[in-house]
Amino acid sequence: MKSYLQHDEWSIVEEGFRPEYNRISESVFSIGNGRTGQRANFEEGYSGDSLQGSYIAGVYYPDKTRVGWWKIGYPEYFAKVLNAPNWIRIDVQVNGQPLDLAQCEVEDFRRELNMKAGYLKRRVTAQMPDGKRIRIESTRFLSISDDEVGAIRYAVHFLNFSGTLSLAPSIDGDVHNEDANYGEQFWEFVSHRAEGEEAYLTTRTKKTGFTVCHGMAFALEKDQKALQPEAIRRTDEPKRVGYSCQIPMEEDEQVVLFKYAGIVSSLNYPEERLQAAAQEAVQRACEQGFDLLLRSQAEAWADKWEEADIVIEGDVAAQQGIRFNIFQLYQTYTGEDERLNIGPKGFTGEKYGGSTYWDTEAYCLPFYLATADAHVARNLLLYRYKHLAKAIENAEKLGFTGGAALYPMVTMNGEESHNEWEITFEEIHRNGAIAYAIYDYIQYTGDEAYLADYGLEVLLGIARFWAQRVHFSERKGQYVMHGVTGPNEYENNVNNNWYTSYIARWCLQYARDSMQTVRALDEAKYQAVLDRVNFQAGELARWNEVIDGLYLPEDEQLGIFVQHDGFLEKEQLTVADLKPEDRPLNQNWSWDRILRSIFIKQADVLQGLYFFEDHFDEDTHRRNFDFYELRTVHESSLSPCVHSILAARLGRLDKAYEMYVRTARLDLDDVNEDTEDGCHITSMAGTWMAVVRGFGGMRVSREEGLQFAPILPTPWKGYTFTVRYRGVVVGVEVKREEVVLHNHDRKPLALKVYGAAREIPGNGRLTVPRS
Amino acid sequence: MKSYLQHDEWSIVEEGFRPEYNRISESVFSIGNGRTGQRANFEEGYSGDSLQGSYIAGVYYPDKTRVGWWKIGYPEYFAKVLNAPNWIRIDVQVNGQPLDLAQCEVEDFRRELNMKAGYLKRRVTAQMPDGKRIRIESTRFLSISDDEVGAIRYAVHFLNFSGTLSLAPSIDGDVHNEDANYGEQFWEFVSHRAEGEEAYLTTRTKKTGFTVCHGMAFALEKDQKALQPEAIRRTDEPKRVGYSCQIPMEEDEQVVLFKYAGIVSSLNYPEERLQAAAQEAVQRACEQGFDLLLRSQAEAWADKWEEADIVIEGDVAAQQGIRFNIFQLYQTYTGEDERLNIGPKGFTGEKYGGSTYWDTEAYCLPFYLATADAHVARNLLLYRYKHLAKAIENAEKLGFTGGAALYPMVTMNGEESHNEWEITFEEIHRNGAIAYAIYDYIQYTGDEAYLADYGLEVLLGIARFWAQRVHFSERKGQYVMHGVTGPNEYENNVNNNWYTSYIARWCLQYARDSMQTVRALDEAKYQAVLDRVNFQAGELARWNEVIDGLYLPEDEQLGIFVQHDGFLEKEQLTVADLKPEDRPLNQNWSWDRILRSIFIKQADVLQGLYFFEDHFDEDTHRRNFDFYELRTVHESSLSPCVHSILAARLGRLDKAYEMYVRTARLDLDDVNEDTEDGCHITSMAGTWMAVVRGFGGMRVSREEGLQFAPILPTPWKGYTFTVRYRGVVVGVEVKREEVVLHNHDRKPLALKVYGAAREIPGNGRLTVPRS
Repeated sequence: MKSYLQHDEWSIVEEGFRPEYNRISESVFSIGNGRTGQRANFEEGYSGDSLQGSYIAGVYYPDKTRVGWWKIGYPEYFAKVLNAPNWIRIDVQVNGQPLDLAQCEVEDFRRELNMKAGYLKRRVTAQMPDGKRIRIESTRFLSISDDEVGAIRYAVHFLNFSGTLSLAPSIDGDVHNEDANYGEQFWEFVSHRAEGEEAYLTTRTKKTGFTVCHGMAFALEKDQKALQPEAIRRTDEPKRVGYSCQIPMEEDEQVVLFKYAGIVSSLNYPEERLQAAAQEAVQRACEQGFDLLLRSQAEAWADKWEEADIVIEGDVAAQQGIRFNIFQLYQTYTGEDERLNIGPKGFTGEKYGGSTYWDTEAYCLPFYLATADAHVARNLLLYRYKHLAKAIENAEKLGFTGGAALYPMVTMNGEESHNEWEITFEEIHRNGAIAYAIYDYIQYTGDEAYLADYGLEVLLGIARFWAQRVHFSERKGQYVMHGVTGPNEYENNVNNNWYTSYIARWCLQYARDSMQTVRALDEAKYQAVLDRVNFQAGELARWNEVIDGLYLPEDEQLGIFVQHDGFLEKEQLTVADLKPEDRPLNQNWSWDRILRSIFIKQADVLQGLYFFEDHFDEDTHRRNFDFYELRTVHESSLSPCVHSILAARLGRLDKAYEMYVRTARLDLDDVNEDTEDGCHITSMAGTWMAVVRGFGGMRVSREEGLQFAPILPTPWKGYTFTVRYRGVVVGVEVKREEVVLHNHDRKPLALKVYGAAREIPGNGRLTVPRS
Repeated sequence: MKSYLQHDEWSIVEEGFRPEYNRISESVFSIGNGRTGQRANFEEGYSGDSLQGSYIAGVYYPDKTRVGWWKIGYPEYFAKVLNAPNWIRIDVQVNGQPLDLAQCEVEDFRRELNMKAGYLKRRVTAQMPDGKRIRIESTRFLSISDDEVGAIRYAVHFLNFSGTLSLAPSIDGDVHNEDANYGEQFWEFVSHRAEGEEAYLTTRTKKTGFTVCHGMAFALEKDQKALQPEAIRRTDEPKRVGYSCQIPMEEDEQVVLFKYAGIVSSLNYPEERLQAAAQEAVQRACEQGFDLLLRSQAEAWADKWEEADIVIEGDVAAQQGIRFNIFQLYQTYTGEDERLNIGPKGFTGEKYGGSTYWDTEAYCLPFYLATADAHVARNLLLYRYKHLAKAIENAEKLGFTGGAALYPMVTMNGEESHNEWEITFEEIHRNGAIAYAIYDYIQYTGDEAYLADYGLEVLLGIARFWAQRVHFSERKGQYVMHGVTGPNEYENNVNNNWYTSYIARWCLQYARDSMQTVRALDEAKYQAVLDRVNFQAGELARWNEVIDGLYLPEDEQLGIFVQHDGFLEKEQLTVADLKPEDRPLNQNWSWDRILRSIFIKQADVLQGLYFFEDHFDEDTHRRNFDFYELRTVHESSLSPCVHSILAARLGRLDKAYEMYVRTARLDLDDVNEDTEDGCHITSMAGTWMAVVRGFGGMRVSREEGLQFAPILPTPWKGYTFTVRYRGVVVGVEVKREEVVLHNHDRKPLALKVYGAAREIPGNGRLTVPRS
């Protein structure tokens, strides 16, 4: 837990230089545009502690794995996002001495991530070892209106001396991943060219063969006038291309370098076109120039904020938190390319390999459903539909048959790329989340045609898996599910994890019901799907048997669902028993101790209560929440948002607020002490849910339509959010005394507020007293 | 299962060339002398499938591990035995064409591992691609009387042509491990020298810095006369040293090359002395010459056989099996160097990294106790005593305190070097085996002084570990032990594994009792030990609580001990339900399926019944044996011997014999289809136990002394074995009608035979009817 960042409604601000927090700030101040992302590394060289990171969506490397390889079914590789060539690099020398903040006395330092307009700005005043004082001011962004373009304005001011300034903008391909098994380089060098004032470097990933071209151009300015430096030296090497300019400067003079980058990859261009495409991007950027590009950036972000913003009154920390979360989500995934997905760290670090996890379905989908056009959420669903064949292959590797599908825990292209048996083979509840996302999408959009066209096929594969994954226990006289890992990864390989079994049973029910739905919609399509998957006569009977006979552990004495067999035999401690120095457990306790302890990493039984809220009465909610909340350490970023929503539902306003702040400011305050590895992007969607579903009480269902039941956390004066619902933009203003609902469509909108049927007139508003 | 090797009482014989089985034969025909080992690779080049392997005891490399590294307590490396420079290499060319059996028509091929005299012989007649027919006859061994020396006699006969023979003996350091994470080379090249007819190559392991010098000399002979070849070319390169000789040959002529190797390492010499030491070894070998060296080898083996041989009459396959097992054990470990230990594959392959496992204590110790001088078994115990500080460190890493000791699952130097959490953190029953070995040793030798000097300290560390590793379950009102992996590694992370909990409780009892024993023996030493380990007042009370209150799962309905909680909830199949194509499971089923199945890799509950036989009545033995035997697939080599012994005890003669054959011929018949990776050395001691403890019914205890109760497997006419018991060599001849016991000491020996007290007169015999 840290609090060195300033509270501000629209910006993240760091004042003063803290080398020890540099990696954290590099994560927090990351910029991205859905296609490319960049940690907040310094442009100039820096010899202090830093995690260099420049990432390109969809470009990964299958790193070899050697543990467990002798066990059948283990994946062959662990996919990882690559640190791509460095496009921000601008070396600075003063009279031949390199500028390196690690070697300077930093007098003044300010970083600002401007979320309203989408740029990163840094201002530094530093004294070099020989007493020369210099000021740097840099502004950079990755354009979201032209997602192949990045731009940097880099100003250098000589404060107390005159001399020669050398500025050397380049594209540097000599980069490494910290997360590399053997420190090897993942890039091959294809071509390099520096000509005129442009430079191009083309690199190719080993094994996967993704080719990427980075291009750059630059311009210099002094006193708002173009400057042609006297001496320019070209760098045109296999791993680095660029220029170095010598500029004589007087005391108190400033020079500005504009660097324009074009970044394109073979995901979008044939290889032979890459350099030309990069050149076109660079030229587009040069033609517009920095100021116009930045204005477009601000306008594009204004459009996003218009629909996605959440305003919180009376709580700057909370306001900043939610905007930071929304900002990072839209920096990471824009929904325009169905080959892409959302890695848990987005573009802010190497951890989790930039791959897709169940986070997407369980956390991110609701955010994009409610803040973007329906095609964005649909693209997320289609991503999995396209991987169905590989999910079936994956299940076959483990010994399942007949078209059973097990979606991978972690994937880039549909193949499993995580190699711990307790996760790969056992954390199978992910399959449930993928089915649930289809349900969620259809509830929200009403798009039942999706079920017939794509959804049912996925549901059948998943149901087949569950039907085989359980077995009948003669001792119990019930079906049981052994050897699973629930969402709580602080326990592995348990039997009868309530959440996994519950969602498994639900998947079987939903697949069965969906068969009826599709049949009623379109008999021909229904038959075609059944033929395609070769559906067998006896399958439904087996499903029904499992649905009726699946064991779900409950404890009568405590009145709770039991996380898994044996959970209540653990040493019964609560979080209150922990010493501060024990936390976070994963940085202080051995894995052995964590596994055997009662402490829960993230919502597990409670994840089920969250998904299937209306299956349980309020007392059941309360008993389970009270039991598990006391034992949960929230060391997964995915945990506090679920607790916040459940607490809100139970009217536990303080707990809901506490959990909200924790999720909203998880990275800003480095709550889990791991932001240095990157930000927790997918859980940011959970923060959004904590406001909209938690405090706002939004629910959507086919039967009941749109519903709100807003509550107001004590520290807040009010809050406002906007959701899209079936093409209509609905604004919700929650105030102390009333709730004002805005309908931005010309037709009236029927909905429920606090359980009562209401209507907002077309292009009108509805005011309801807060209850 | 294969049966291509010929049955012979004293030799392993392969007739005919089977390239597809070459790796298996390379394992089976391995030679070794306790300090160095060599797979049965061909001396000449071979482009076919082969696992090159030359190993030096105690020389290893700590290979980096990257899976699970973020979890606290994970080991930092995985130790592996290294494929050392190749000392057997002799390249052969005929008129410039290399001889490569993979490119020849092999007309005649015979390999023989002569176990009586300790050498490997190979005879090949091959037709080269151009029709030239050639015969090779090679004999080689690693001397057990001079363990720095290896020798090869390599004869080449031109059968149907004349021409130029090139023979190039060398030391080749350009070798790799197949089991290398990234195919990297583990050796640095220190120096090389070829001079006169000698050559030396000094290499050093990366990271660990073990330095090894290989030296060689050679001589040529034709018609029993020394031959000086016309042209000798020297190879003196950083990675390879040696000579190449050109020899003109007539049709039907034969030439013989003698190659003498000296192999020494920095384990035994200061680095600057290494080359001189290698030279001395080479010169000792040259002075004696091949024939004399081979005679010494045969004599040394005769001495070993004199005491360790088991003779089986009427069953050549069984006879060959047991001799092969004894032979390989003594090739692997001689007990003279307490820094060394016994890797599960000995010197016959890379798998298991050549490290020490619990196999040593649970399986090998009884063999060395009964067939070698007591100092050999004592050295095995001291190995662990010297690692106690590291075992305490290891436990501290996991969060244990106050001198609790957890011995590593796998180790080279006392540090844990296995990196799967379910093994490293959970297969903790190994700690019990280390305590049990102390008990076993003292029962056998009566050496209670060992307890005071070393044993108690180890026992206290182990007991402290168990006392912390359990926790009190309020639900059960008992102590429980969660998160363990029993000997059956086909289940991981289970709760209340009966075997682990049982041996844990026993360790606490034995440690408590041993405190009394030592106190009675020597109060001062007792106090010194307690002071040294800082024994606290409350510790014994806690131990007593755990001893009295530890939960051990039993099932009343079946009358068995339950392998662990949840075991009876599994799908209740037996091995009879498996299809032949499913087996071995570990090569046909996914790890996921194996983990969830009922099938047991190796004795687990039954391992406990074996160790603590006299704690249970015969009915308990029978019920547990009958239940678990039906579910055990014996895919660990350590399993069938235990089943054989338990079956013998229950009078299940057929089952005991079936299991005996399986263990005795495990590698000869490639029963588990993995002998290509190396032979199962440690389980070979189990084979010996199956005869001596199983059929022979030998038991030794402090109270009852030496006991025998021999039974005779139906296919056998009789069998004979020899054991050492407290300095006395006792011979046991089991015949159809009677048992004859020989006392090779001058004093009479009291013992029990079939439960009755008897005495063998000094230097006399006792005949007892077989019952």
